[in-house]
Amino acid sequence: MPTYKAPVKDMLFVLNDVLKLERYSNLESFAEATPDIIAAIVKQGGKFCEEVLQPINLSGDKEGCIRHEDGSVTTPKGFKEAYDLYCQGGWGGLTAPTEFGGQGLPWVLSVIIQELTASANLGFSLYPFLTAGVAGLLNKIGTDEQKKTYLPNMISGKWTGTMNLTEPQCGTDLRLLRTKAEPQDDGSYKITGTKIFISAGEHDLSENIIHLVLARIPGGPEGVKGISLFLVPKLIDGKPNRVSCGSIEEKMGIHSNSTCLLNYDGATGSLVGKEHEGLRGMFVLMNAARLGTGLQALGLSEVATQNAADYARDRLQGRSLTGVKFPDKVADPIIVHADVRRMLMNARCFNEGGRALALWIGLQMDLEEKAETEDERKTAKNLLALMIPTAKGVMSDLGYANATNAQQVFGGHGYIHEWGMEQFVRDARITMLYEGTNGIQAMDLVGRKLPKDNGEAIRAYFQMIEGYCKEYEKDYAEFTDPLKKALGDLQQAAMWLMQNAVKNPDNAGAAATSFMHLMGLVALGHMWAWMAVTSDQALKAGASDKAFHEAKLITARYFMNRHLPQTGSYYKKIEAGSEFMMALPAEAF
Amino acid sequence: MPTYKAPVKDMLFVLNDVLKLERYSNLESFAEATPDIIAAIVKQGGKFCEEVLQPINLSGDKEGCIRHEDGSVTTPKGFKEAYDLYCQGGWGGLTAPTEFGGQGLPWVLSVIIQELTASANLGFSLYPFLTAGVAGLLNKIGTDEQKKTYLPNMISGKWTGTMNLTEPQCGTDLRLLRTKAEPQDDGSYKITGTKIFISAGEHDLSENIIHLVLARIPGGPEGVKGISLFLVPKLIDGKPNRVSCGSIEEKMGIHSNSTCLLNYDGATGSLVGKEHEGLRGMFVLMNAARLGTGLQALGLSEVATQNAADYARDRLQGRSLTGVKFPDKVADPIIVHADVRRMLMNARCFNEGGRALALWIGLQMDLEEKAETEDERKTAKNLLALMIPTAKGVMSDLGYANATNAQQVFGGHGYIHEWGMEQFVRDARITMLYEGTNGIQAMDLVGRKLPKDNGEAIRAYFQMIEGYCKEYEKDYAEFTDPLKKALGDLQQAAMWLMQNAVKNPDNAGAAATSFMHLMGLVALGHMWAWMAVTSDQALKAGASDKAFHEAKLITARYFMNRHLPQTGSYYKKIEAGSEFMMALPAEAF
Repeated sequence: MPTYKAPVKDMLFVLNDVLKLERYSNLESFAEATPDIIAAIVKQGGKFCEEVLQPINLSGDKEGCIRHEDGSVTTPKGFKEAYDLYCQGGWGGLTAPTEFGGQGLPWVLSVIIQELTASANLGFSLYPFLTAGVAGLLNKIGTDEQKKTYLPNMISGKWTGTMNLTEPQCGTDLRLLRTKAEPQDDGSYKITGTKIFISAGEHDLSENIIHLVLARIPGGPEGVKGISLFLVPKLIDGKPNRVSCGSIEEKMGIHSNSTCLLNYDGATGSLVGKEHEGLRGMFVLMNAARLGTGLQALGLSEVATQNAADYARDRLQGRSLTGVKFPDKVADPIIVHADVRRMLMNARCFNEGGRALALWIGLQMDLEEKAETEDERKTAKNLLALMIPTAKGVMSDLGYANATNAQQVFGGHGYIHEWGMEQFVRDARITMLYEGTNGIQAMDLVGRKLPKDNGEAIRAYFQMIEGYCKEYEKDYAEFTDPLKKALGDLQQAAMWLMQNAVKNPDNAGAAATSFMHLMGLVALGHMWAWMAVTSDQALKAGASDKAFHEAKLITARYFMNRHLPQTGSYYKKIEAGSEFMMALPAEAF
Repeated sequence: MPTYKAPVKDMLFVLNDVLKLERYSNLESFAEATPDIIAAIVKQGGKFCEEVLQPINLSGDKEGCIRHEDGSVTTPKGFKEAYDLYCQGGWGGLTAPTEFGGQGLPWVLSVIIQELTASANLGFSLYPFLTAGVAGLLNKIGTDEQKKTYLPNMISGKWTGTMNLTEPQCGTDLRLLRTKAEPQDDGSYKITGTKIFISAGEHDLSENIIHLVLARIPGGPEGVKGISLFLVPKLIDGKPNRVSCGSIEEKMGIHSNSTCLLNYDGATGSLVGKEHEGLRGMFVLMNAARLGTGLQALGLSEVATQNAADYARDRLQGRSLTGVKFPDKVADPIIVHADVRRMLMNARCFNEGGRALALWIGLQMDLEEKAETEDERKTAKNLLALMIPTAKGVMSDLGYANATNAQQVFGGHGYIHEWGMEQFVRDARITMLYEGTNGIQAMDLVGRKLPKDNGEAIRAYFQMIEGYCKEYEKDYAEFTDPLKKALGDLQQAAMWLMQNAVKNPDNAGAAATSFMHLMGLVALGHMWAWMAVTSDQALKAGASDKAFHEAKLITARYFMNRHLPQTGSYYKKIEAGSEFMMALPAEAF
């Protein structure tokens, strides 16, 4: 059975030493986040995930959720008890507003909890993840009445939440949405339609489930401008509303999360935000949801890598190419083999680099709201515009690839359920698909975020990386030189797109995924340079944990040496253009 | 539910137009393989797979195999009937020797059947695949008595076969093998031990199961030189032998194949080949088994791509970036989007290029045995030395990646079992693990095959590709130029290895996987140039199927433009060396 150890030290390194959260203590919510509080949260959260959530992950996958004839759903053994402990620990309210019972801490700490819970038990983590999303949205655009009615119970975890967008004929393209919302005399609406792929749609963990539902008010505009957002509770005043679970999807993974088809049959709902502005409401949550999805992949990559490293240290098979390392054993552990190291080092580059990136992005989400000056808030907003689709797309692609590699370290045993590695791969696979497929992320980045405001965001990003390199190139050229080179490829790619996407928009589509990954490499390169500089300075200042910082420097060098130069290969794909990609008639496939 | 259409036209194009099998009609077994016979086999084989095997693939995955209390195993519904039809069709004997009831056709036609059956139903295909392996081995090194006793029934399919290598403590490293074989007075042996991961180890398809088992005769040499090979039938003269299925593994995929733990408890076996030369015996089959594994991944990539293309043509969502394409529909089909095309074109490059490569390799397996001159046989042998590990490793890596991309085309629906796409991914995953992990393939290529006989094989390969380019560069520079450039990267990589692997063998280990993929790109580039030239010549000669050949040329250009230039990026990884990869102490992971 797989194990999990929360990467507490690495998380604290990023929060305290790299991002230096203390610098922001003047800002709302940061004042409370003293180093002691942060350390306590990371450690306690890690302990909870290790001891409560991880032990029911493999069994939860095997057991899955069961829908009964009356439409009720039972979660796997131990999930209800774990959920109660999660609520008692106050984990759902960590960054929620204090006036509704939350602890009001910075958002960046939610990023920590999301990674930890995803590593320990992705299926479980989706129940509170969606609840936090719904509560966050209500907090931003709900009426005072809605906030008062729903937030305290959602923040405590007594009630959970869901997001209802997808319908059978309507996924990415929300113009095609059909669910109806008919206004009633009392100001409420009757919601009718079928929603699919509703995570946590029905279950036995909470007393009530609050569904957020996109629907059309008859007579409204066509297309996406006629979509409104509604709040539809499973129970109203304890009595069942007209919403029911028609089936649970049979999926590749995340079996312990009940992914439901929900039937709305004239269910009573209340409008959230303004009529016909439902999409704007949903977009409020987009950044958190997409970063969260990237974090899920990161969490799975982390736990998969930990288990692969343990296996590689234990499994005796073959001898090192550079001579027997353990003559007293029947064979050397497979970690002596360079090809096994390769998989572990690649994963390490992503796990640690991706963690720093995600936490830095989480910090920008705080700064976008709470920074003191308009300028600082704008800077954060621009960074998020670029980094959110990149983090979602790149982290989920790399998380899946690393989970697959970690499974590979196990050889044939990796294919067997009881080792748990194949579950990590199956679970990670969803992160590339939901919250907008990775192709959608890439198109969002290239088609929307890049050209917006005349490229303001990307130009600011270039300046920031150039500024970083300039600041450190004297002492740290071994890190800033490769970063500058990678940035050059990114700039060249952006230039190519400016010149070629207008004359043929398919050039943007053809380049999108490569551009997103090129951007991801630069962003990870930035993090690795930053971490390397931090660790080197710590070593020079006589840091006690030498081994930790030395490992950071070695991994940074591996990344600079082996990963970052791949930006050139992405650039080549981009400049190949769309001609041959689009040349075949559809029927030729 | 997914569908499958056998790629008959493409297969015949490769066999007849590219490889020109007719050229070999002077050789043993090829004389019978007239174009008419070949066409009949491909079409009939395709029809059988479409109509009999494919319809029970999804249900077979869901149902899996069931082990009963008495150790017997039931395969999923419809498998027994399908297997009987497979036997009646004579598919198991296609390339088997005529003296034991086979049809004696060239091996390259088995390659066709392996792809077809893997596309339609990988789990099913493993039963006959293993049987053919065991029969092939007995035919090469069995005694006349063994051949007479076992081959007719195995070739007809009345009996099936298995290969027993792995033990819990012993996978790649066969030195660690413990199963015992004690000689008896009557010349037989009593086999005792536990074997795991035995595909098709116990089932209800055939009357008997013939296990080939690696075991040690007490008193023999230690290490791999003390391993012998034994034939252990499930039934002897209709009576149960002392071998039983202890459990069926719970796996990520190929659920319809019973992967067994087999307990040998003093089972009666007979020696195959010589004492202590069991590994040599097993190696006889290595080439066929490894190419077959690559073919399985190819088959899954093909069927997954077909379904993704169908879905992309049907699914209406969003509008083309270059303007509405279907104004009469609520949205355009998603095949209008470049990023969807990218995934389909990438898969197409691999499916068609990989098919040509696999068939060309299959032909070399025929030529290694049957070519008229020692020189020709040697040439084939050298090509196989390089191409077998490359085909196994590269085709399984790319097959899995393409199955994943095909699933991606479906968006969230790809994650749902009933669409069948997630099964293709789960099934494809095994091909990177069994028959030697892909890391083992890469090490075999770089550590064994490259340096062997002073690099004779790789030098011959360089010459062949250079010769090919020289022959066609005048008229086909658009294909030979990129191929030459890619070959240059391969040569540079081989040179780097020569200079750096001896002084530090970890440099070979660190480079191995990248070198294997670099080699794979060159090999696929060779096939694409060859196919492009063939199609262009066909068009110039007024071929009737213009659309087919034009699609070939466009896909070749896409490959040359977008895939082949990635050789440079693999070279960069190779020359990065092993320093930082190996620098961390094992406990740092």
